[in-house]
Amino acid sequence: MAAGGELQLLGSWYSPYAIRAKVALGLKGLSYEYIEEYLFSKSDLLQKSNPVHRKVPVLIHGGRPVCESLVVVQYVDEAWAGTGPPLLPADAHDRATARFWAAFIDDKFFQAWRQLMRSTTDERRAEAFKNVVPQVETLEQGFRECSKGKKDFFGGDAIGLADIALGSFLVWIRVVDEVSGTKLLDEAKFPGLAAWAERFLAVDAVKEAMPEFERLLEHYKGFLAKLAAPAGYS
Amino acid sequence: MAAGGELQLLGSWYSPYAIRAKVALGLKGLSYEYIEEYLFSKSDLLQKSNPVHRKVPVLIHGGRPVCESLVVVQYVDEAWAGTGPPLLPADAHDRATARFWAAFIDDKFFQAWRQLMRSTTDERRAEAFKNVVPQVETLEQGFRECSKGKKDFFGGDAIGLADIALGSFLVWIRVVDEVSGTKLLDEAKFPGLAAWAERFLAVDAVKEAMPEFERLLEHYKGFLAKLAAPAGYS
Repeated sequence: MAAGGELQLLGSWYSPYAIRAKVALGLKGLSYEYIEEYLFSKSDLLQKSNPVHRKVPVLIHGGRPVCESLVVVQYVDEAWAGTGPPLLPADAHDRATARFWAAFIDDKFFQAWRQLMRSTTDERRAEAFKNVVPQVETLEQGFRECSKGKKDFFGGDAIGLADIALGSFLVWIRVVDEVSGTKLLDEAKFPGLAAWAERFLAVDAVKEAMPEFERLLEHYKGFLAKLAAPAGYS
Repeated sequence: MAAGGELQLLGSWYSPYAIRAKVALGLKGLSYEYIEEYLFSKSDLLQKSNPVHRKVPVLIHGGRPVCESLVVVQYVDEAWAGTGPPLLPADAHDRATARFWAAFIDDKFFQAWRQLMRSTTDERRAEAFKNVVPQVETLEQGFRECSKGKKDFFGGDAIGLADIALGSFLVWIRVVDEVSGTKLLDEAKFPGLAAWAERFLAVDAVKEAMPEFERLLEHYKGFLAKLAAPAGYS
């Protein structure tokens, strides 16, 4: 159990945002109670702990909730500064760079990729895919600058905030690729990111946090079926 | 001049995001060269310094750019940790709370208020206003929790990240109120935020960073006129 009080994580196994919290806690080597939340029957604890968004992840530390995945990752880094590897670099400019890319991933990459993920026809998929590619090009360029062609991760020699932000989508990206017949992180087009993805997925804390491909594929097919149905998700 | 290299800020006088950078630099008592950027003729320096978004603010410190307003505020706090007041609290949970509200302001409040700001008819304004009010209710509740009814600011006794995030919109909110015939931060409905706004605007570093009401009103009327014209802003 972590120093400074009990630790609980409210998550959903397939949520990229909950995966971020799991990876951060795993990298720090922290033990915690994991509580699975269900989209259509959210627990009272979730609703009380995150009344603004009612979304996972919520990290509850000594009874006090921390919400929003990127906020959680930074909280884990700061609350356990002396435990495990740092998740943000020491240098102020490097920290700004990590936050910049984390924001880009949520604001630009995800918004474009979400359209692909929610597409239910080949025509829409082709259109959405075209719109994601420029965001991935920007990320490839960003990775090149962050790693200077020498480092393994956005965060340098080890995983940091921006790696966790993007890496949390990797199994999802592959599952959507599988259904769409695409390969978003194609090694010919994006050699930096393709190699980065392999390195990220090989890290123990990541392996433990990631959903299993086949299970997520089934989940995604179910999601698409509901989306295509008249009374689908909104 | 700041320690550690020359300091330049690329901004636009009316940009709430540039105002955030100005307030942060002002609170820290830092001197810098301010470079005004124009939406329709962005400088080569801006395009080179922020190739991903090509947006203000960009803080250039010792030749290295920092982009994205909330990233800039945190950078200023960290790069000049020993200078002036802290912009984020020392406690990890309080820091998480500040980041949570800053994200809420950009993701939820601004997205709703932007619709009001871009409305060109009374009917659309009434509809948009109705959609902003719940976000302000959440902020009022958040302010009550952050300040515990005792503190002056979201950040406690002094201005912090969340105050700067929301406060940067205050003159804009009043200008849109003026044109719409509304009063968003009504003291009867939102007593906490209404009093907070007065305190925020009375701080020297804020007064120096804020646009003049009449000038911003003219700017906004021009914006609305272009928006209503066939070849308006997109």
